Amino acid sequence: MVSVGIVGGSGFTGAELLRLCAGHPELTAELATGDTQAGTAVGALYPSLAAVYDDLVFTEYRAEALDGLDLRTRVKHVFDLAADFRLRDPAIYAQWYGHAHEVPELLDEFVYGLPELFREPLHGAALVAAPGCYPTAAALALTPLIRAGLVDTTGIIVDAASGVSGAGRGKYPFCGTDEDFVAYGLLDHRHTAEIEQTVGAQVLFTPHLAPMNRGILATCYARPVSTTSTTEVLGALQSAYDAEPFVVVTDASPSTKATLGSNTAHVTARADDRTGWVISLCAIDNLVKGASGQAIQCANLALGLEETMGLPAVGVYP
Amino acid sequence: MVSVGIVGGSGFTGAELLRLCAGHPELTAELATGDTQAGTAVGALYPSLAAVYDDLVFTEYRAEALDGLDLRTRVKHVFDLAADFRLRDPAIYAQWYGHAHEVPELLDEFVYGLPELFREPLHGAALVAAPGCYPTAAALALTPLIRAGLVDTTGIIVDAASGVSGAGRGKYPFCGTDEDFVAYGLLDHRHTAEIEQTVGAQVLFTPHLAPMNRGILATCYARPVSTTSTTEVLGALQSAYDAEPFVVVTDASPSTKATLGSNTAHVTARADDRTGWVISLCAIDNLVKGASGQAIQCANLALGLEETMGLPAVGVYP
Amino acid sequence: MVSVGIVGGSGFTGAELLRLCAGHPELTAELATGDTQAGTAVGALYPSLAAVYDDLVFTEYRAEALDGLDLRTRVKHVFDLAADFRLRDPAIYAQWYGHAHEVPELLDEFVYGLPELFREPLHGAALVAAPGCYPTAAALALTPLIRAGLVDTTGIIVDAASGVSGAGRGKYPFCGTDEDFVAYGLLDHRHTAEIEQTVGAQVLFTPHLAPMNRGILATCYARPVSTTSTTEVLGALQSAYDAEPFVVVTDASPSTKATLGSNTAHVTARADDRTGWVISLCAIDNLVKGASGQAIQCANLALGLEETMGLPAVGVYP
Amino acid sequence: MVSVGIVGGSGFTGAELLRLCAGHPELTAELATGDTQAGTAVGALYPSLAAVYDDLVFTEYRAEALDGLDLRTRVKHVFDLAADFRLRDPAIYAQWYGHAHEVPELLDEFVYGLPELFREPLHGAALVAAPGCYPTAAALALTPLIRAGLVDTTGIIVDAASGVSGAGRGKYPFCGTDEDFVAYGLLDHRHTAEIEQTVGAQVLFTPHLAPMNRGILATCYARPVSTTSTTEVLGALQSAYDAEPFVVVTDASPSTKATLGSNTAHVTARADDRTGWVISLCAIDNLVKGASGQAIQCANLALGLEETMGLPAVGVYP
Repeated sequence: MVSVGIVGGSGFTGAELLRLCAGHPELTAELATGDTQAGTAVGALYPSLAAVYDDLVFTEYRAEALDGLDLRTRVKHVFDLAADFRLRDPAIYAQWYGHAHEVPELLDEFVYGLPELFREPLHGAALVAAPGCYPTAAALALTPLIRAGLVDTTGIIVDAASGVSGAGRGKYPFCGTDEDFVAYGLLDHRHTAEIEQTVGAQVLFTPHLAPMNRGILATCYARPVSTTSTTEVLGALQSAYDAEPFVVVTDASPSTKATLGSNTAHVTARADDRTGWVISLCAIDNLVKGASGQAIQCANLALGLEETMGLPAVGVYP
Repeated sequence: MVSVGIVGGSGFTGAELLRLCAGHPELTAELATGDTQAGTAVGALYPSLAAVYDDLVFTEYRAEALDGLDLRTRVKHVFDLAADFRLRDPAIYAQWYGHAHEVPELLDEFVYGLPELFREPLHGAALVAAPGCYPTAAALALTPLIRAGLVDTTGIIVDAASGVSGAGRGKYPFCGTDEDFVAYGLLDHRHTAEIEQTVGAQVLFTPHLAPMNRGILATCYARPVSTTSTTEVLGALQSAYDAEPFVVVTDASPSTKATLGSNTAHVTARADDRTGWVISLCAIDNLVKGASGQAIQCANLALGLEETMGLPAVGVYP
Repeated sequence: MVSVGIVGGSGFTGAELLRLCAGHPELTAELATGDTQAGTAVGALYPSLAAVYDDLVFTEYRAEALDGLDLRTRVKHVFDLAADFRLRDPAIYAQWYGHAHEVPELLDEFVYGLPELFREPLHGAALVAAPGCYPTAAALALTPLIRAGLVDTTGIIVDAASGVSGAGRGKYPFCGTDEDFVAYGLLDHRHTAEIEQTVGAQVLFTPHLAPMNRGILATCYARPVSTTSTTEVLGALQSAYDAEPFVVVTDASPSTKATLGSNTAHVTARADDRTGWVISLCAIDNLVKGASGQAIQCANLALGLEETMGLPAVGVYP
Repeated sequence: MVSVGIVGGSGFTGAELLRLCAGHPELTAELATGDTQAGTAVGALYPSLAAVYDDLVFTEYRAEALDGLDLRTRVKHVFDLAADFRLRDPAIYAQWYGHAHEVPELLDEFVYGLPELFREPLHGAALVAAPGCYPTAAALALTPLIRAGLVDTTGIIVDAASGVSGAGRGKYPFCGTDEDFVAYGLLDHRHTAEIEQTVGAQVLFTPHLAPMNRGILATCYARPVSTTSTTEVLGALQSAYDAEPFVVVTDASPSTKATLGSNTAHVTARADDRTGWVISLCAIDNLVKGASGQAIQCANLALGLEETMGLPAVGVYP
């Protein structure tokens, strides 16, 4: 049994880690910090967790226990779900975040935790940067097509919609969001840089907010390098994901609802004879495959456990 | 490993059994019948299940394999999620269902599968009638108060709201249901009889439809036998459920959202000095604790397994 | 054309007044104060209003212009949508609000603005207290039965569900509310006192929050004085509302969705032979008939205009 | 007062016409046919309309009254909300609908009813084809940019999301749609041809279904003809719509929720220096500006009435 401490654990990704740890045979969550919620019982803030976490209380983050660069000597593995160590190039970081990275020397030490595309370095990894939710969906849809040389690496469009939980607790009030569909972050969403780094291409990324709790659908458009077909682009996805336990390649249209609560991504692709565009889609649960589930998938690999351990591959439906 | 066959498995409770079996260490679903869906792959009808059930196909129900009274010789345990064997009195059945029961001689052989209230007969049981969703919520809220002699057994009101999945696939179109709250089955909902039998009291039951997928909240009103207090009625719930892994007694107001995807019920109670009423509330996931999860909880007991095996006690939130 | 100033106009009831004034032939909104939004364009905070209110800006409330008891000399009519002048008895006010009323001498001067039940004093009224949303629904469902002497005036239960807009802007985050149904204010919601005053009976009131923007359904339970029938209780509603342009008496189950955006209430009633209870239901749009629409209906009466002027009687569906 | 008959009036666009006619000073709906609902009271199928349409009953369509080519001699103006007379080229019709047009000789006689882009021919028009919902949104976003020569007319992408009411009554069950976001009609949605005709450019159109009742957001991507800027593209929209009562040009991100129940479109545009793309967005209510409201706007023009008569420009919010 491996003890897990969750730093900044009072948000949705923290709660999701607690949920997944409750069903994981080898991980047990023993610490959850959350500065604004310090002293609150986990089960009071998240009644959904009360039946299992009847004793756990959010604590204040103690700098002396888990501080800065000293971190690695105190815990064996760090899985960072925030965005700080995803971008490898400090200049790109500065460009999109508006300030210099504070510890650029650590950027190279973090492994990017998207197993289906970059599995090898995750075995035994000590420092893992878990990908963002949009980049996970976009990369799963696009990368096999780019690696197969089927599509151009410029002018790609990623048009995506997310459920509201991606924005964290409290940001969006119900009445301003329910029954609404709206784009946001036009031209300047920070995930753009992470998508570009991960898929290795120039991307215009337009996120939208959909009136639902969970789920991301990325609808991606790319220009073929030469004449292609639906058979070929769908085949590229099938080849890439044939042995993957958490990817379903489908010729249907992937639905976010099919992924709710699961670590599974659903992908498809089409080539349009008429306009020349290739379209590729991926649906995930932003809090599982797009955050906490993928982090645990990485933890399984890093710890030498079965990669699928404790991770639901089936969704809660309806 | 116990092989499970799901008869009438293409509806939501069937899909939920398949989801839960996927995470159960000792149950494996090998058959799912569904007449209207015969020939359809499970993963095509429910993409949420595709990652695990990549080979399973809904089949037609074959009468010769699982027919009528012969059923018990062919399979060792039957867990009936339909309403046919919940009521013990054929006269009550006829009154609420409008026709005589077809096999009244079997009614006595079925055990009513609500472990927190009637656990003993479930150990090793061959025939189990899984309770309805509303009766589960109402009985968990009311029975401890009635058993403790705190409230009258006449004139009880059960005012409840359910998510739409309780009505099955396809009955309610999105546009007629979203952003709507409406009562239905005024005075004559069939679950009334099951609630009355289970809690042992006369009940007026008013169900409502809430614009959400899952969840039932039962808000119950009863008259105290003599002067009582919130401390006393809450204490009765705590005494009844202290050792129960799937019941959270709370002094907060139970929320259906806290139960999503889990087998856990949340209950509370209050006594109103001003008007004299006792109010008792219970929230569950109608498809888990209100149907498929409770059936598996019963199966665990019937099969001699750990009662909590394979059943999530934490909910998917948000 | 009558100039309207909306004090505290940046919340949902203020925005709804602006919407309704835009379609009213005789009212024109020329001022909207909102302290926290002072300086914000109406169309920026509420893009839904931008096409009409392209110049209006929320301003700070200026005490010298509209101050306290001097109010009546400066404007001819005041329609108060807040709760301050609804209760007539200062002792009741103190009991439910936890502090003494600040200007109890004004309580008698305000007319309670529920035209279907108390129309006469509204003609030409200078000071009108617009009812609360729950009290409007409960009173429309119960009062005709009480006035007809059909039901007891003690032990009445009002079990109601409301959309989230009733709580105002920002209180409930999307992810904590969507797909949730939960009771709140158990035993102590302040609308209890207003319901009791309006219907003239003792009431236990239990509000619930439903995952939708608008709408209230009140499901009310009362004991008959003597044996009654569905025909009799439904007949009492029909007699009371036969000539009312904004009440639909139906033998179907009233749905909140049918009322969206309209000033119309839908009511029905039943008597249960089995348990003896009478049940009476009313659905309204909490922001229209439950707030701003009713205020304008009162304004029409007070100003000597056609009572229905500028008020939609049909709902936006779906 | 002009009498209106609604043929095929029992669907959502028919109900919306009835709602809008109820608030229109010069139009009165006296007939509504609906074959599957013949004999049903309007107020029974749509309780939202019951307060006004207490006598109107859906009738069977009588061929002898309104038959085929004879139609024009019997009524003075026809506003067709279906798709039959939107495409001008019978070959394009056949290509997208899979069969030859039945009365191609009529195609030239219908005027396309999108006033902001093609107002002139609508004055006094006898036959009007009301545009589809997606084409309305896409055309309002793109046409000013194309007319100003700012963007290429090939390779345009229209990525759009719609509420469920666009699909009509009953098609989508609640539980399969709520909390889901999914693309549909990949590569072959019929509105593609209408968008291409209306904007005069080659378009790849990808519609999505969002879990809400109403609203369409079209997010459109086009390549600039030469270097452009956000100022220039936004300016083109402002020039085009400066005098339009039903278009709000905004530098914020248009939200579908701002349009609910209104005939108003909200549009914006951006030019991306980094990738070269121009992005243009439009939000409308699919049942009002995307269907029935626009039809009435056309009717006002055709009948010589004030163009805005009876049409709400403000939305119902929240």
